[in-house]
Amino acid sequence: MNDAEKKRFADQIAFLVEMDKMKNIYRQTRVLHEDRAENDAEHAWHLAMLALVLSEYSNEPVDLKKVLATVLIHDVVEIDAGDTYAYDAAGNATKAEREQKAADRLFGLLPEDQAAYMRQLWDEFEANETPEAKFANALDRVQPLMLNYCKHGESWKTHGTRREQVEQRNQIVREGSAVLSDFVFALIQSASEEGLLK
Amino acid sequence: MNDAEKKRFADQIAFLVEMDKMKNIYRQTRVLHEDRAENDAEHAWHLAMLALVLSEYSNEPVDLKKVLATVLIHDVVEIDAGDTYAYDAAGNATKAEREQKAADRLFGLLPEDQAAYMRQLWDEFEANETPEAKFANALDRVQPLMLNYCKHGESWKTHGTRREQVEQRNQIVREGSAVLSDFVFALIQSASEEGLLK
Repeated sequence: MNDAEKKRFADQIAFLVEMDKMKNIYRQTRVLHEDRAENDAEHAWHLAMLALVLSEYSNEPVDLKKVLATVLIHDVVEIDAGDTYAYDAAGNATKAEREQKAADRLFGLLPEDQAAYMRQLWDEFEANETPEAKFANALDRVQPLMLNYCKHGESWKTHGTRREQVEQRNQIVREGSAVLSDFVFALIQSASEEGLLK
Repeated sequence: MNDAEKKRFADQIAFLVEMDKMKNIYRQTRVLHEDRAENDAEHAWHLAMLALVLSEYSNEPVDLKKVLATVLIHDVVEIDAGDTYAYDAAGNATKAEREQKAADRLFGLLPEDQAAYMRQLWDEFEANETPEAKFANALDRVQPLMLNYCKHGESWKTHGTRREQVEQRNQIVREGSAVLSDFVFALIQSASEEGLLK
């Protein structure tokens, strides 16, 4: 390796070591078989598994590699910006600015070409316009809802979450997948009937 | 959806819910910023990030989607078979049989086509013959070594791990990536000089 190659490799390793912090960003969703919150690394892995298994239900054909890359990196900004609860209005008011700064620093650890690639994926995810971004955003709603339902609405009860809030948040699923949207709204209906949601 | 489609979707969701158990399979590796072991979901996510960033160092060109799918599912069998510590001779004697049974049950939760796809990926990973399997196996050695080194050899000290054991275990890295093999052996050299390895 020449010096430029050594620098490139060292930057890549520094980014990958920094990524370990994803294991310490805790979300509102609870894991099913322990009494604790799920972290961002676990969440991203679970989304990637959903992508592998459920991509046939995307409304539009998707490049699965791109969906996988998107869900793997979609929450990396939370290393600096933290997890903002979906129904936290004050936190969501400053979320965009905090996350832009975080994206600059975190993706900026990588060599330029890779930083640009990941930033592009994340920007597309946030804009929710490409088929892959729409499907990734749908999965990002389906996974916590599925876990919350299986966990008897624990995080909804903690936060006193109302059915209308969950319905509002899950409108976006239909843009990525009609099938997953039907699934999500059937789960919300069941959760409501079972008293898990106000 | 007709009945067959409903059954397919229900099986896929059952598999994805079962996958939550990956979050409760603890490995010997420690996470960097908390005093606890890493779990299989976190490990698989971190490997996928390594795959995204380091694939240029594979000895042979790889299908990145296949590498990602492989690392995402490579430890799923541990839901039934448990994590076997790399340097546990007794555990490793029965590992293959336990993991074959686990693969039958766990991938068998999926519709047949997807079960066959994932089983094929896992069999290839275990056989370590395709370019993607060789690169995935290399990453599966690099990631814990990198974390152990950053964590000042904590899990090596706990187990009294010897340098020769780590060198032996990491021989396989060279089959997937000469660059990563050089990195790994340089880390082992440093760890040894710093007294992190016996």
